[in-house]
Amino acid sequence: MHAPIELANVAADVLARIRERAPRVHCITNSVAQQYTANMLLAAGAVPSMTISPDEIGPFVAGANAVLVNLGTFDRERKSAIESAVAMAADKGLPWLVDPVFIERSPARAEFARVLVASHPAVVRLNHAELATLSGDKADGESAARFAEGHATIVALTGDIDTVTDGRRGIAIANGHPLMGMVTAMGCAGAALVCAALAVESDRWLATLAALAAFGVAGELAAQRAHGPGSFAAAMIDALHGLDRGTLRSRLKVS
Amino acid sequence: MHAPIELANVAADVLARIRERAPRVHCITNSVAQQYTANMLLAAGAVPSMTISPDEIGPFVAGANAVLVNLGTFDRERKSAIESAVAMAADKGLPWLVDPVFIERSPARAEFARVLVASHPAVVRLNHAELATLSGDKADGESAARFAEGHATIVALTGDIDTVTDGRRGIAIANGHPLMGMVTAMGCAGAALVCAALAVESDRWLATLAALAAFGVAGELAAQRAHGPGSFAAAMIDALHGLDRGTLRSRLKVS
Amino acid sequence: MHAPIELANVAADVLARIRERAPRVHCITNSVAQQYTANMLLAAGAVPSMTISPDEIGPFVAGANAVLVNLGTFDRERKSAIESAVAMAADKGLPWLVDPVFIERSPARAEFARVLVASHPAVVRLNHAELATLSGDKADGESAARFAEGHATIVALTGDIDTVTDGRRGIAIANGHPLMGMVTAMGCAGAALVCAALAVESDRWLATLAALAAFGVAGELAAQRAHGPGSFAAAMIDALHGLDRGTLRSRLKVS
Repeated sequence: MHAPIELANVAADVLARIRERAPRVHCITNSVAQQYTANMLLAAGAVPSMTISPDEIGPFVAGANAVLVNLGTFDRERKSAIESAVAMAADKGLPWLVDPVFIERSPARAEFARVLVASHPAVVRLNHAELATLSGDKADGESAARFAEGHATIVALTGDIDTVTDGRRGIAIANGHPLMGMVTAMGCAGAALVCAALAVESDRWLATLAALAAFGVAGELAAQRAHGPGSFAAAMIDALHGLDRGTLRSRLKVS
Repeated sequence: MHAPIELANVAADVLARIRERAPRVHCITNSVAQQYTANMLLAAGAVPSMTISPDEIGPFVAGANAVLVNLGTFDRERKSAIESAVAMAADKGLPWLVDPVFIERSPARAEFARVLVASHPAVVRLNHAELATLSGDKADGESAARFAEGHATIVALTGDIDTVTDGRRGIAIANGHPLMGMVTAMGCAGAALVCAALAVESDRWLATLAALAAFGVAGELAAQRAHGPGSFAAAMIDALHGLDRGTLRSRLKVS
Repeated sequence: MHAPIELANVAADVLARIRERAPRVHCITNSVAQQYTANMLLAAGAVPSMTISPDEIGPFVAGANAVLVNLGTFDRERKSAIESAVAMAADKGLPWLVDPVFIERSPARAEFARVLVASHPAVVRLNHAELATLSGDKADGESAARFAEGHATIVALTGDIDTVTDGRRGIAIANGHPLMGMVTAMGCAGAALVCAALAVESDRWLATLAALAAFGVAGELAAQRAHGPGSFAAAMIDALHGLDRGTLRSRLKVS
């Protein structure tokens, strides 16, 4: 449906719009991921905000351009912040993404993820174990498409290959590098980049694949400079910051 | 009033005293900034402590040499910790700095910042939007001076140019690098360095400009080594750790 | 009792088993240390988990292979999480380590540390000031041995020289580098590596010395690449990730 060159151009356009418009992404994310997520958003040209205080979450979300909901550290304060943020995002028509981290390890978290997914997120980003837990089904491209269609959302199923589907349109992105799995919060930071893309591209499917494509290509570039996962984490931020259209066009691998 | 060489020597002296005396700075700061702030203080030769537990904040502040109060994640626990810390700092005569992060986005936070500024901090560190919110005035060197004099404090107004004023003495520091704006918590870490300087230099105006001058020069050195904001964040810590008198003398730009 | 070559082989074997089995270490640690600790565990081949939510701590610990209890930010939520985690670890027979950070600065924290040490941790990891606070005795190899024997635990007394003792067997490890003291959470991350080792080696004394030996040698390698404490922090993760048997054999300094 789309040639790699065409999608590389979409990804480059989305990155350019993030850099130009500097959308603010309000992130309700786990304490382990906050710093890396904020630095990734800044490197892309977006603006992070992070408060989860009940007194403040309303005004912070109201003025944001997109919202990230990550369940990585799931405590009462964050649960309450998420409920307020999702209500405000619905009220303002803001796109929001839910990242149901580790729901396969905690029934309480899985139950809350189900409520969130029924609340019309723009995108659900998850890995294979998380999709299987949420859907009660096996996790592959077909079940992702069914889940997306059934919930009227975009599913971004991440792994060695990233699948992005809205139920009708599906694409597989084969970029990335194994070192991405050796840095904590890497997936969380990628989900934040999807949020920045949602703020500047109204086609949620295109926004999601643009962000994940750019993220995967940045990972490949970073691996070339890195001596291990420590230097890779910083090189990934450098690579996303400097990523250009020509590199996206020469490296994007989609099918 | 001061030649650049003279101020460079002051900055070098202050850094030397921090390295020699290893003052402990108790930081009540946002969860996004904690790690970077702690590493910046360690690189300067100071000792960070970070607890916000109500059971512990008293003894931790009582034994510290300066206190950082950052409003970047403003929740009930931090608000209560700040009130205890400020009371203890007043009791012990410790210098403390308030960094009213993002008060322009949250009325509750702005209101609390006003209470803090009236409680005699040694230094108020803020950017233009934050000063405008706090003063209800435009934000420039003159309004900063009026604010400093009216509140008997030092104002450190940070931006492309940093202004440090006590109302009578004012100075503008033109060091720094745009990459400093692309790393989360960079300003918070700079404010922590001001706290370390306050612990070893009783002239609060000199302490503040010494720290901000050193920080800006370190940013320039770091940019020379960096490939983007990810490697810059680490290079900044390296640069502050290795910063010497000769470099300060050759690079400091004040007016 | 053990030749350096023999212990280097033990350390290499333990690292190999961590890489092969990918044990999950559940970490209840301070918010400053979470990210660096998680990245260190990932670099070693282990899997970190970090939640402290009372609703979730039970299932997360039940499925883990070892538990880290760090008192670095001591608040009510973490205290409650620790109590649940320790009870679950006892129930499942999981090894757990307690790292009583900064107990010399806070009587409430020291009191809680005493309760934990009486609850049969596999390892107590602490520095000289912390051991003196806990034991009411001077801190040296002999008092560490007495403390270990009296509490039927392993004491890992860290400093320029690391001492690992179970009361009968004791060893001193002279590896490491001064830059390790200039990065926040370095000791916390080292303690997490001990937990990963405990998950794959049932001789707790051997597991502890293997992890600390590998950590010290990684520090030496990292220092060779670093330009200061900022780049050192990342280089340390790279070095642990790439650490091999030959390097351990040529560098280990024990007595």
